[in-house]
Amino acid sequence: MEFSSKLLESAVNEMAQLPGIGKRTALRLVLHLLKQPESQTELLSESLTAMRSNINFCSNCHNISDTSLCEICSNANRDQSIVCVVEDIRDVMAIENTSSYKGHYHVLGGKISPMDGIGPSELTIPSLVRKVEDGIIDELIFALSSTMEGDTTNFYIFKQIEKFDIKTTTIARGISVGDELEYADEVTLGRSIVNRIPFESSLKN
Amino acid sequence: MEFSSKLLESAVNEMAQLPGIGKRTALRLVLHLLKQPESQTELLSESLTAMRSNINFCSNCHNISDTSLCEICSNANRDQSIVCVVEDIRDVMAIENTSSYKGHYHVLGGKISPMDGIGPSELTIPSLVRKVEDGIIDELIFALSSTMEGDTTNFYIFKQIEKFDIKTTTIARGISVGDELEYADEVTLGRSIVNRIPFESSLKN
Repeated sequence: MEFSSKLLESAVNEMAQLPGIGKRTALRLVLHLLKQPESQTELLSESLTAMRSNINFCSNCHNISDTSLCEICSNANRDQSIVCVVEDIRDVMAIENTSSYKGHYHVLGGKISPMDGIGPSELTIPSLVRKVEDGIIDELIFALSSTMEGDTTNFYIFKQIEKFDIKTTTIARGISVGDELEYADEVTLGRSIVNRIPFESSLKN
Repeated sequence: MEFSSKLLESAVNEMAQLPGIGKRTALRLVLHLLKQPESQTELLSESLTAMRSNINFCSNCHNISDTSLCEICSNANRDQSIVCVVEDIRDVMAIENTSSYKGHYHVLGGKISPMDGIGPSELTIPSLVRKVEDGIIDELIFALSSTMEGDTTNFYIFKQIEKFDIKTTTIARGISVGDELEYADEVTLGRSIVNRIPFESSLKN
């Protein structure tokens, strides 16, 4: 792509660094900004810079937060003895949306993925193990994605905390609500039969 | 969507103002920036702000340019008596990529679209008409999108310059190279038969 302006070119190149945004999309976005008032570009730039340089993480659960202890961790009504282990803030938001969980979270910041150079020390696993050692946790719920990396991470953490007397659970894998059986994949369907639950308890939700 | 941080929320909201980017995508992009070095966010913000506040348009063809006369308009080897009318810089880039055009351009900055509040005065049509009045143009090539708005814009310009003695042409509409006839739409196929060309001239390209 040849540009008639260096300013345009560098804006497009920087925009195209974002994941899933190619040069054509970047050009479309940048040309859109050119047609909008200058203030919109300023607001965008300022909010990105402010976010990147001033963002804070909760000292307890490592979730993104403006305060040193996030709203969930500082809420006395929530049960700190149950900790749900998730990958990032999006998972916290998704689970909070369901309104069916009243415990704490622990945000790992990713999954163990040797291919991408992410090992246990790049994640917040040591701080999770310390919390378990301190004896405040009764139950650890693994809520990572059901992928190879997610399962590896679950297993790695499980091995680290095996010797402590706490309950470890994982979110249920099964057929999604509203899904037709014939389209479900074999592994999911198989697991959903092996891990079947009493009919009465399915009536509760 | 409820965010645990105001900084994150405003960054996501600003990002989601861009066309085709919803809140979920915006969150994904912003979280990506958080994982990258701070310098990447700074480069992105700076290049966007610099582009938006310092961008220049060529005084002759209205294309984006760092100089007051763009490279194409200031190139003595290009024929200024032929002017190709296009919508925006992307069309100039696309036609330049073909290397088959050696005339000048005129960038309208959009198409006439009453639904979006874009009339002739929002575009650079007056300056195009002045160029025609000055008598430097021999041929005007309409190269707008083949849509209702594109055709309206073509016709509006045509009516404005009808009284001057210049040739007006439009780029050929027809079956794309590599396309199968059976999948072509009726209008395109019909026009490609009505506007058929001598076989010898199809051998030239």
